[in-house]
Amino acid sequence: MKPSIPKGTRDFSPVEMAKRNYIFNTIKEVYALYGFQQIETPAMENLSTLMGKYGEEGDKLLFKIQNSGDYFKSLTDEELLSRNANKLAGKFCEKGLRYDLTVPFARYVVMHREELALPFKRYQIQPVWRADRPQKGRYREFYQCDADVVGSDSLLNEVELMQIIDTVFTRFGTRVCIKINNRKILTGIAEMIGQADKIVDITVAIDKLDKIGLENVNAELAEDGIPADAIEKLQPIINLTGSNAEKLQTMKEVLGSSEIGMKGIEETEFILNTLSTIGLNNPIELDLTLARGLNYYTGAIFEVKALDVQIGSITGGGRYDNLTGIFGMPGLSGVGISFGADRIFDVLNQLDLYPSEAVSATQVLFVNFGQQEAMRCMQTMAALRKAGISAEIYPEAAKMKKQMSYANAKNIPFVAIIGETEMAEGKVMLKNMQTGEQKPQNTEELIQAIARQ
Amino acid sequence: MKPSIPKGTRDFSPVEMAKRNYIFNTIKEVYALYGFQQIETPAMENLSTLMGKYGEEGDKLLFKIQNSGDYFKSLTDEELLSRNANKLAGKFCEKGLRYDLTVPFARYVVMHREELALPFKRYQIQPVWRADRPQKGRYREFYQCDADVVGSDSLLNEVELMQIIDTVFTRFGTRVCIKINNRKILTGIAEMIGQADKIVDITVAIDKLDKIGLENVNAELAEDGIPADAIEKLQPIINLTGSNAEKLQTMKEVLGSSEIGMKGIEETEFILNTLSTIGLNNPIELDLTLARGLNYYTGAIFEVKALDVQIGSITGGGRYDNLTGIFGMPGLSGVGISFGADRIFDVLNQLDLYPSEAVSATQVLFVNFGQQEAMRCMQTMAALRKAGISAEIYPEAAKMKKQMSYANAKNIPFVAIIGETEMAEGKVMLKNMQTGEQKPQNTEELIQAIARQ
Repeated sequence: MKPSIPKGTRDFSPVEMAKRNYIFNTIKEVYALYGFQQIETPAMENLSTLMGKYGEEGDKLLFKIQNSGDYFKSLTDEELLSRNANKLAGKFCEKGLRYDLTVPFARYVVMHREELALPFKRYQIQPVWRADRPQKGRYREFYQCDADVVGSDSLLNEVELMQIIDTVFTRFGTRVCIKINNRKILTGIAEMIGQADKIVDITVAIDKLDKIGLENVNAELAEDGIPADAIEKLQPIINLTGSNAEKLQTMKEVLGSSEIGMKGIEETEFILNTLSTIGLNNPIELDLTLARGLNYYTGAIFEVKALDVQIGSITGGGRYDNLTGIFGMPGLSGVGISFGADRIFDVLNQLDLYPSEAVSATQVLFVNFGQQEAMRCMQTMAALRKAGISAEIYPEAAKMKKQMSYANAKNIPFVAIIGETEMAEGKVMLKNMQTGEQKPQNTEELIQAIARQ
Repeated sequence: MKPSIPKGTRDFSPVEMAKRNYIFNTIKEVYALYGFQQIETPAMENLSTLMGKYGEEGDKLLFKIQNSGDYFKSLTDEELLSRNANKLAGKFCEKGLRYDLTVPFARYVVMHREELALPFKRYQIQPVWRADRPQKGRYREFYQCDADVVGSDSLLNEVELMQIIDTVFTRFGTRVCIKINNRKILTGIAEMIGQADKIVDITVAIDKLDKIGLENVNAELAEDGIPADAIEKLQPIINLTGSNAEKLQTMKEVLGSSEIGMKGIEETEFILNTLSTIGLNNPIELDLTLARGLNYYTGAIFEVKALDVQIGSITGGGRYDNLTGIFGMPGLSGVGISFGADRIFDVLNQLDLYPSEAVSATQVLFVNFGQQEAMRCMQTMAALRKAGISAEIYPEAAKMKKQMSYANAKNIPFVAIIGETEMAEGKVMLKNMQTGEQKPQNTEELIQAIARQ
């Protein structure tokens, strides 16, 4: 029997884990700097919590867990023979695997409302599961890294989330462009031209300006059924260029009559002005074609693009209202972001941006020459570990070549040798695996030499 | 609709998460000091990987995941109407949730054998799921923290695992007793008295010595069907006292004729002698009544008891042969330990051993007096965060009392105030929430004062 794992799932090897931990730890540290606190929720939720929250398609993509015990008892022959998979799944299963972190978070807030100090700033980094068709870059099990603030309308939350994004990617050493939009501006545009239901068509068409040119954009808008006078009114928005301030100025002129549009402009202006006072390392850009999550975002919308790698959005988020309304707790506004860990992993891989200390494991391997020498190694290693140095001894007194190739395979930068001479002299021969240099040292010198690396 | 979570599962609040992270991070750091590397495996495994590995009872306790799509197609009317829950689960489900970390690890080793440098020292900290009846302290989702070395027979691995246990509990600040035994010694005892199948009965009876006295232990052994002459031979073992060395000396005399028994004594002697040369902070004790995992451990057996809290074993492990034999890769020996995170959590809670910096979140809350003041706060906070201090601002310009009670609820040790006076003077009023002391400071002084805490 040749073992395998379910399609769309992955094992993570030591090197992959070290890289992933570097990503998660960086994000966690920055979240914590801004006062976000971690929570975790169970992998399994009741199906009543999950069903109906992700649309009909989402319901189908939930992994459902078979009830234990005799789940046939309550079923009639007729029901069984109906072979209605969807309906009977409801009888066979009461639990499902988490599909995202948002619905469990909403459920958490409602269940723990009495003990929460609002505004509640939480982050959550856990796997989610979706029975999607697996394909390149799309998995059935993947991690999400969400941070949300609920219970506060203040735009300072938006500002801080942008600072978090900026700090995280600065720490990663990868250049990004943060894109920002506002649902209210999009609503204002649709209002202005009297085409409330066409907002997605409009943003999709505008998004193609660079590729297909103004004429073709206008043609596509006409094809989408937008009348000529509305397309005329849209021209300053399609042609929107310049700095964020210039764009906002144009928008103000165009949307002056739309209350909601002006509100969106005001919000965006506040966020951008505050951020420019504080100062970001990465550019932030008003982008009206940004239209993610239009069915739930109600205010600011964010997205992050990597500048040096061709890849989709690597982080996203926005402001939503009524997160917890589905669980009977209305009126709680929130804003959140989510880092796309798998894509960030690919970006850092492509740009080779992992710091060596983050991905290196053992710092020194002690060669094993036999019981007596091993004992001296064990004592020296105890001192090294006390000094925070990770050390291991090859557990068998195997051939030197075998021990050295173990050090190579694990990418261990130093090898320590205690043979006959070193035993007699009370020293350790430290060999730098990169330079080949070697030198006898006492324990104190050993610690210094390895820690310096 | 009142939301709930499946029975036997838990939400972890920010404070619980901080404590759990402290436990996991401590264990991870120590594992890494000894050259163990982390891996992760998917939550879902194929049922063919899991079934038959945990006994008949274990198969029933697996959480099985319903296949997507039309899982009725392949079933005849007869099969359906048989209502054979166990058999049909095999048709409805191909995947199950991980039941422990050992079987997935064995599967991992076999699948990745070509890329592994043996000996392979891996650790793994992930949740597992069991459809056990939930009860106090027993959950359907819980974390395991395993470290194993496979591909090496060397007893140095046993020694290092004991050092790891000792270091972890030393860092936690909780006193423990490490108990060690050896399956080969138990086999030797059974061999010597010609009662190979009675070894569990014997250890259970001996374990009661302190409670019920020698006479009753002997009576119980007789009741278990052990002949009088065998009980006679067992007397020195039942009465075994003294130091580890004294115990081993007695055992050598009793088990002299059992080759396997003497091998077990020799192994134990090597482990204990090496450890006493290196030196441990916690006592380690040879305990012949330790008989965990007798159906798979083949050499050393370990267990850790907390000395200051009444609770079951908080860590365990042992040497096993043939971990990967079930997946067609025979002859790989291994040894491992597993920290019981939930019980350690309870122990540290009861003894109040969490370092305050491990469980505190935000270090300073900035009070919000309105837009202009908030802007100054945001700038000051940027400097603090650059210095590694976690800071937040109350996002609304709410009543002072509300903002202070938020600081209290989140256990934030400092509150920073930038009001009219501070704006004018370019200072920040820093208030120590514990002492009530407050003092105007510039940003540099602020960083010093908070970092000092």
